Amino acid sequence: MNISRERLLNRLEELARIGAIPDTHGNSRLALTDDDRDGRDLVKSWMEDLGLSVTIDGIGNVIATTDPDGGPPVMTGSHIDTVATGGRYDGVLGVLAGLEVIETVLSAGITPARPLAVGFFTDEEGARFPPDMLGSLVYVGGMSVEEALDATSADGAVLGEELERIGYRGSAPVPGAVPHAFVELHIEQGPVLEAENVQIGAVEGVQGISWTEITIEGQSNHAGTTPIGMRRDPGLVAAQIAAKAREVALQIGGTQVATVGSLRLSPDLVNVVPAQAVMTLDLRNTDEGMLVKAEAMMEAFWTEAARAENVSITTRSLARFEPVVFDPRVVDIVEATAVEQGLVTKRMPSGAGHDAQMMARICPTAMIFVPSVDGLSHNPAEFTHPDDLEAGANVLLHTMLRLAEME
Amino acid sequence: MNISRERLLNRLEELARIGAIPDTHGNSRLALTDDDRDGRDLVKSWMEDLGLSVTIDGIGNVIATTDPDGGPPVMTGSHIDTVATGGRYDGVLGVLAGLEVIETVLSAGITPARPLAVGFFTDEEGARFPPDMLGSLVYVGGMSVEEALDATSADGAVLGEELERIGYRGSAPVPGAVPHAFVELHIEQGPVLEAENVQIGAVEGVQGISWTEITIEGQSNHAGTTPIGMRRDPGLVAAQIAAKAREVALQIGGTQVATVGSLRLSPDLVNVVPAQAVMTLDLRNTDEGMLVKAEAMMEAFWTEAARAENVSITTRSLARFEPVVFDPRVVDIVEATAVEQGLVTKRMPSGAGHDAQMMARICPTAMIFVPSVDGLSHNPAEFTHPDDLEAGANVLLHTMLRLAEME
Repeated sequence: MNISRERLLNRLEELARIGAIPDTHGNSRLALTDDDRDGRDLVKSWMEDLGLSVTIDGIGNVIATTDPDGGPPVMTGSHIDTVATGGRYDGVLGVLAGLEVIETVLSAGITPARPLAVGFFTDEEGARFPPDMLGSLVYVGGMSVEEALDATSADGAVLGEELERIGYRGSAPVPGAVPHAFVELHIEQGPVLEAENVQIGAVEGVQGISWTEITIEGQSNHAGTTPIGMRRDPGLVAAQIAAKAREVALQIGGTQVATVGSLRLSPDLVNVVPAQAVMTLDLRNTDEGMLVKAEAMMEAFWTEAARAENVSITTRSLARFEPVVFDPRVVDIVEATAVEQGLVTKRMPSGAGHDAQMMARICPTAMIFVPSVDGLSHNPAEFTHPDDLEAGANVLLHTMLRLAEME
Repeated sequence: MNISRERLLNRLEELARIGAIPDTHGNSRLALTDDDRDGRDLVKSWMEDLGLSVTIDGIGNVIATTDPDGGPPVMTGSHIDTVATGGRYDGVLGVLAGLEVIETVLSAGITPARPLAVGFFTDEEGARFPPDMLGSLVYVGGMSVEEALDATSADGAVLGEELERIGYRGSAPVPGAVPHAFVELHIEQGPVLEAENVQIGAVEGVQGISWTEITIEGQSNHAGTTPIGMRRDPGLVAAQIAAKAREVALQIGGTQVATVGSLRLSPDLVNVVPAQAVMTLDLRNTDEGMLVKAEAMMEAFWTEAARAENVSITTRSLARFEPVVFDPRVVDIVEATAVEQGLVTKRMPSGAGHDAQMMARICPTAMIFVPSVDGLSHNPAEFTHPDDLEAGANVLLHTMLRLAEME
């Protein structure tokens, strides 16, 4: 049994017309905007066309089930909101492939051992209303619906008001019902699968994230008249920290990554030793112990570097999430299913956050990745080849059927 | 014989009222503005009050001589224009101390072996009309007066028009007459004298300057999903270059300094490996051979660092000046004079540019430095203690008298 490639691609194409970014392949459907509403209306109509039972909960998560009275379903899903300049498959693929899986199963006249469900969660991107993964966080009880409804955007909009406005404040309870299992199909958003010629990633978990803002204060001085020995150069220490971050990542190895994405000097003039440097450090690892070790190595380094240059350092945590480990049984099923389909697979972590990491708090969960061309995402140039979209949906189909059999 | 501390301080105070920056000790008299004109008018009136012969040349340099027919004078001087948020002694001290020296000599009824002259040069700061040291550059024939008159400011003003407007386009010829010798008193604009408890710097020359803008292009990537081995991170290479610059400065030693004052990443986001880094590298040394060596060491480093990270580097020279070496006889006289006055002295380079480096092209030249509190300059908080102002003017007095005796 296979999904219909044509039906899947047609639905992807049709949804991509809503919030299309002119002259690109990309989409802009920020959460709870009119475009998001139009996208929701379209996907909900497809769910209803299949005769599914559709519920909308108090934070706007929409879930469609084959049999609402059949006990905990095997659930899939993702999100259909995008960042302001997003791609067409990020999130959307997981929702529409889930719909396609259910249509395929229904068309085949098969009745799995458990109901199947597909949903889309509100505001996964967090691009309009922080935090990201808000809808799934509320679904699993990690945030109260009241707090979530109070979230405000940079433009002053209130989430609860926008949800009412677009007609998606529903009555289904949150936290939501606990599924039998959850599996999410998503584009990789990174370069690994393409670079290694792998078709399917069996995602074992989500990297833990440590974001730190480091502010270094020194002494602004004339670049010509201040001898090296009399300098207190915060820019130098920032550079040393950035260079060290790479060394630490290599030293720890494994899945450890370290990134200095932002670094600003002031006054930022060619002939002035800066007074201040503000930088960010992004550390990620699938292993909490290793992540803590990376943090400790960096802190020891910058403490010593600041002492040597006689500058002061203050830090602020911008984000800190422990790694999420997916259920090994679900990961095994994803992998085995892909292999059975004759696909090249790889066990891998996710470097980005996903709704599945929230669902992992309440039920056996894993993810399926398909390749992203050039590793691009959050970019209108995001692309995944149709063959990979189809392969991912077929792996999702058979994974869900197997999960229905899982104890 | 000593200068009058009171007279010097009073003149400094009076000139500082023109273009005073409210609520600070600082001044804003950009070249050829109304405030610059008012400052010029005041200083010129003081020159005339002393019965000096005052000339204005084709680029607005103003020079006053005790005896225009007495042959090449011993000349001093500096500038009275400031940066937009400048201090009150940068340049001004050299002009008003020169005036004070001449008044002291005249009052004492002494006739030195050669005439004495004091001048102020147009647009030394270059803050309104680049390049800096424009007036003295034209005086020594390093730039044609026509080219200089065509210089335009960022606000569209033309130097020649502004010079006419404020009434300072004179008829004295440029290039100007060659003095017997030139000596300039200036605040250090750096922290060395204060830190070492030295009262007088005998300036041996001006550091050579090498300014390079380095643009590094890599590949923007997701900070979570892109393994270290697949990165092409221009921010990392920028950081490595900045850290290396310090190592090279220490390795070369002596007067070598190296500064990365500007460093910008784009897109400059916490969770994105940057696509591009643009940075500046400021290298200075009093020895041209060592400066060339520093440049070569840095270039070898960034070539290898770029290769290792698979990023591309392009560079653009923003400025390149060879070091200026002052006349050892004049430096000796400055030093001996200061020692005779019971002052602690130090031979040192200038890290900043000065009119004296232009004059050095045409006659025996050196400079006298007095301490800058906290090394501050180009800042309304610039300050030099009155005792140091007075000491500097006395060293200038006796240095000029000795230079009049020099062959």
